[in-house]
Amino acid sequence: MSAINVGIVGVSGYTGLELVKMLHAHPKFELAYVANSEGDTSLAALHPALKSVCDLPVEKADVKEASRRCELVFLALPHKTAMAFVKPLVEYGCRVVDLSADYRLPLEIYEKHYTEHTDRHNLPKAVYGLPELYRNAIASAQIVANPGCFPTSAILGAWPFVSKRVENSPVIVDAKTGVSGAGKKLSETTHFVNVNENLFAYNPLGHRHAPEIAHKLGLEESEVVFVPHLCPITRGMISSIYMQIDEALDAKSFIKKFYEHEPFIRILDKPVDMKSVAGTNFCDIFVKQQGSTLFISSAIDNLQRGASSQAVVNANIMMHLPEELGIPKIAYVP
Amino acid sequence: MSAINVGIVGVSGYTGLELVKMLHAHPKFELAYVANSEGDTSLAALHPALKSVCDLPVEKADVKEASRRCELVFLALPHKTAMAFVKPLVEYGCRVVDLSADYRLPLEIYEKHYTEHTDRHNLPKAVYGLPELYRNAIASAQIVANPGCFPTSAILGAWPFVSKRVENSPVIVDAKTGVSGAGKKLSETTHFVNVNENLFAYNPLGHRHAPEIAHKLGLEESEVVFVPHLCPITRGMISSIYMQIDEALDAKSFIKKFYEHEPFIRILDKPVDMKSVAGTNFCDIFVKQQGSTLFISSAIDNLQRGASSQAVVNANIMMHLPEELGIPKIAYVP
Amino acid sequence: MSAINVGIVGVSGYTGLELVKMLHAHPKFELAYVANSEGDTSLAALHPALKSVCDLPVEKADVKEASRRCELVFLALPHKTAMAFVKPLVEYGCRVVDLSADYRLPLEIYEKHYTEHTDRHNLPKAVYGLPELYRNAIASAQIVANPGCFPTSAILGAWPFVSKRVENSPVIVDAKTGVSGAGKKLSETTHFVNVNENLFAYNPLGHRHAPEIAHKLGLEESEVVFVPHLCPITRGMISSIYMQIDEALDAKSFIKKFYEHEPFIRILDKPVDMKSVAGTNFCDIFVKQQGSTLFISSAIDNLQRGASSQAVVNANIMMHLPEELGIPKIAYVP
Amino acid sequence: MSAINVGIVGVSGYTGLELVKMLHAHPKFELAYVANSEGDTSLAALHPALKSVCDLPVEKADVKEASRRCELVFLALPHKTAMAFVKPLVEYGCRVVDLSADYRLPLEIYEKHYTEHTDRHNLPKAVYGLPELYRNAIASAQIVANPGCFPTSAILGAWPFVSKRVENSPVIVDAKTGVSGAGKKLSETTHFVNVNENLFAYNPLGHRHAPEIAHKLGLEESEVVFVPHLCPITRGMISSIYMQIDEALDAKSFIKKFYEHEPFIRILDKPVDMKSVAGTNFCDIFVKQQGSTLFISSAIDNLQRGASSQAVVNANIMMHLPEELGIPKIAYVP
Repeated sequence: MSAINVGIVGVSGYTGLELVKMLHAHPKFELAYVANSEGDTSLAALHPALKSVCDLPVEKADVKEASRRCELVFLALPHKTAMAFVKPLVEYGCRVVDLSADYRLPLEIYEKHYTEHTDRHNLPKAVYGLPELYRNAIASAQIVANPGCFPTSAILGAWPFVSKRVENSPVIVDAKTGVSGAGKKLSETTHFVNVNENLFAYNPLGHRHAPEIAHKLGLEESEVVFVPHLCPITRGMISSIYMQIDEALDAKSFIKKFYEHEPFIRILDKPVDMKSVAGTNFCDIFVKQQGSTLFISSAIDNLQRGASSQAVVNANIMMHLPEELGIPKIAYVP
Repeated sequence: MSAINVGIVGVSGYTGLELVKMLHAHPKFELAYVANSEGDTSLAALHPALKSVCDLPVEKADVKEASRRCELVFLALPHKTAMAFVKPLVEYGCRVVDLSADYRLPLEIYEKHYTEHTDRHNLPKAVYGLPELYRNAIASAQIVANPGCFPTSAILGAWPFVSKRVENSPVIVDAKTGVSGAGKKLSETTHFVNVNENLFAYNPLGHRHAPEIAHKLGLEESEVVFVPHLCPITRGMISSIYMQIDEALDAKSFIKKFYEHEPFIRILDKPVDMKSVAGTNFCDIFVKQQGSTLFISSAIDNLQRGASSQAVVNANIMMHLPEELGIPKIAYVP
Repeated sequence: MSAINVGIVGVSGYTGLELVKMLHAHPKFELAYVANSEGDTSLAALHPALKSVCDLPVEKADVKEASRRCELVFLALPHKTAMAFVKPLVEYGCRVVDLSADYRLPLEIYEKHYTEHTDRHNLPKAVYGLPELYRNAIASAQIVANPGCFPTSAILGAWPFVSKRVENSPVIVDAKTGVSGAGKKLSETTHFVNVNENLFAYNPLGHRHAPEIAHKLGLEESEVVFVPHLCPITRGMISSIYMQIDEALDAKSFIKKFYEHEPFIRILDKPVDMKSVAGTNFCDIFVKQQGSTLFISSAIDNLQRGASSQAVVNANIMMHLPEELGIPKIAYVP
Repeated sequence: MSAINVGIVGVSGYTGLELVKMLHAHPKFELAYVANSEGDTSLAALHPALKSVCDLPVEKADVKEASRRCELVFLALPHKTAMAFVKPLVEYGCRVVDLSADYRLPLEIYEKHYTEHTDRHNLPKAVYGLPELYRNAIASAQIVANPGCFPTSAILGAWPFVSKRVENSPVIVDAKTGVSGAGKKLSETTHFVNVNENLFAYNPLGHRHAPEIAHKLGLEESEVVFVPHLCPITRGMISSIYMQIDEALDAKSFIKKFYEHEPFIRILDKPVDMKSVAGTNFCDIFVKQQGSTLFISSAIDNLQRGASSQAVVNANIMMHLPEELGIPKIAYVP
């Protein structure tokens, strides 16, 4: 089989960089197009660590050119900007993995939490790119809406137990994230002095990933209690989930069986940690019960499983390639 | 009023050092005796940063000598070791602030979670040293059992709302702590490479501070769900608490009123952070509601409010000194 | 003696905060005026950790008002801005400790490395505020030019040995600094993700503190080789200095004797570290020789001895107060 | 060409783990034997991040078995222990890449700084495994002595300029290293609380890597001034080198030309940083001149180019494989 040409629009940020790192080394995908909003630069100018490794020219994003050169395009763009690209890319026959929030939610929920949606036509066709839940639909999707990082860790941890939940009890997600999730943009919150030796909740009970978690778990928004915390760490994310479930369930055996054929989920016997998944597409999960309370600890790399490596897994599925092809499994430890 | 002679037994560790830092500068207490298990050294040999600041000789711990020279002794010793000192110190007429767990719990709970208690006679007389709850009893106590760090942050956050709790609903405490809480002892868990850029739960649902939290809140052990997480930070602790309460309550107004006369509690309008309390005796608290779920974020310095500065506050109360005398309020920020 | 009224202009930044922390607790200085360029705010709004501790109103900086209310004013302002304040403050009879670079260098050197000087009249009257070198002159100065952080650590380390230097050999200063030295301003260089787990030289052989070091040591600019490195640390600075000296000199005995009466210099027998001085005005120094090469390691807190606590020491000297009054000596360790 | 069987003895530590990570993914090497001193465990038990990735059984190290199954063995063992393995491995016809110091130095220098050498017969046959200097000799060596991390960064930076050095002037190497270089062993120096927010020199002018640097650069021990500093970073190393050279030399053009055909050396136009090489075999170098002083900043990943990836490059050369085969070039950034 010959190479499949793919492109990245929005290559300046961290998720764009992660996509380059994987696609550059991918056995079947050929990185045929990389672009950002300005163009006229190169990968190594944007990301100096790529010098002598992968120094493609970076062009000014152009939908026609992207679709002319690529079968599939990854969009690593901000919300709102992404949908303006998806619409024409689809018209030109390109398949799209969109890392933004634009196609993750039904119209009503999206517009309540984000902004007006300008591609209502395609929105219902998009498939939510969490392979464990939607593998088959992803395979034939033209648009895959790549999940947010918090939803990925929270949903993978909670999903097996939703049907065992005590009625009307909240699903509490206390998440801890590294700073890279906030992107390259300078802000008080990402200033070294403010983050180092510090930790705090941000947007408690008001973060836009909460409705995404609720919707995919089939819950009301009010049933998910979501509080993210920023930690002095670059990469990594842990969702500590507390649910009330049927006491009779043996949660550990249950989830081991539930995910036994999943190549990117590991159920651990001791608490998960961030470093063991950093750099990989793994989601590590630990569970423990106290009476009817279930504690679930679910760890991912926020930039990989929470964004870019999951995007490439989705692309593998869309192109009927082996799901694990070119996907990193070896963590950055120590 | 002349100086009050006080001593520290167990001066080698971090809480011992913190005690020295405060007592050295305290306007009324005179540090008349410092000891550890070996003796024959000096404060600056144990803690080089004290060179040219406070370099008292460190003696081999001797109860008789301690009580001869001091009106009040701080014990910064491990569990079990502490009670062997408390008993004779009390006999010699000394007052004691014990930073260990030995006098914090009723006999049954203590022996269930720790070890056999060898000072059953004094145990019931000890007062739990959380000034906001037991100020009056502390004033006349001979033994003050200084609270654990996790219980301090969790109880101060949850306590105002316990009476508003939905019956039988669990109090969930998801705590994040810096590494200094683990002490000076070398271990895999405190090895730099294992902690840096990492985060994980430890002893989830099995930590010995859970029964302490439950008991002081007047709850059953099973009603408190406690999961601590270790973070790549030296100092600081945040307890993220989730409770089901009466929806009609305005939690923020309520807790502001509840603590309005407390000099060491600050109710904030935006989420608390660790650095704003590091180096001080403050407990900063933030609350927010979603339906019947109450989110409480409670931040302390684990070595100060979670141990040593709270111990000195207790000593101030015991000696009828102003509670704020010599207690640090200026954080280490930036 | 009654209190001496002092003020701070430029209270928004880190050095302004450090000044507040010390002056708030100072036994003789009364903080009578705090200002920044905007005004209409309060200390706790600018520095949330000061809530319930010291919440003076912050006014829009006004020279007349400052001089009306204060005997001495600390200027924690950027270069250029500072001299526009010094000039009128001096006219109004106020004494000034200027934390900027504006009065540290002779006109020619200043204008070569900074900008045009607009207060040539006062420039020659200013005294360089390194107490170990200029204690007597500081006592009677109207303007004290507080040294830069790198020059403080480098000069205190190198100064005793300048007269022992092998002629024409360079003084090499390889400095390592925490990020707080770069201030609150957002920049790529202070973005958490860029600094964390990273380290790099910046402005090697081109930093503006090099001529300051050279001038105060009585050397030509070309004789000082200065390379600062940014480290993933908030506070602290170490200058590793390499000099060629007379092999016959016993450097350790020499420097111990040289500084034996200095209250804020500690000569250590093992290598200095940043944490043992963080939060204090100490400069810790270690020396070791290999043939004619002398290695000097000189550690300070960049915000304290490198800026604010040194400024308060200078103010103590100017006001004929004991030099150590209100100056922090107890480090933030652990 | 069929796979080449290789083994690792000493697989418990960080460099052992790094070797596994590369050899597991290497296109030509087959990891046929992994061992440590105890055996009876598995890779995922020793390194949990390898679960579901590479979980070979770990055997008790046995020279005969290793040589029976492997053409080449990597020894990731402490000094002294290594030579006891090299001797019999060579007898059995195995080729060896030894990551310890045991074969890096001539007998006299080795015994002066380490211990008695018990394999004097093989010592002179070993080749120092710095490919840029000894590529041809490595190709036919039976024993390759893999360089230390400090020497790798220092030598690659200084080597091009040694012939341009001002006679008798010292080569000053001020190195900064992450903590992983100290290995998994628990010690005060690697305790999180002691390293975090801290920085200090250790073994200044007394580190055993200094004679290794001197010997390979063809200098006297006394001509190399070496001071390593420990930094609160897991991975990475920068050597800041100061040399006196012929002022007329254009150092940047010179070193660019010097290394122009080297696949793992990048000469940068702005100062190098640790993160851009972390996870790779690159050595990034920056140079700048001030009069006759040359400043060289040389960055490597201490565990990769400073140990394991360089070891695999050496193995590639020994087996006449392309030097870059299976060697990581994509950094862990961000």
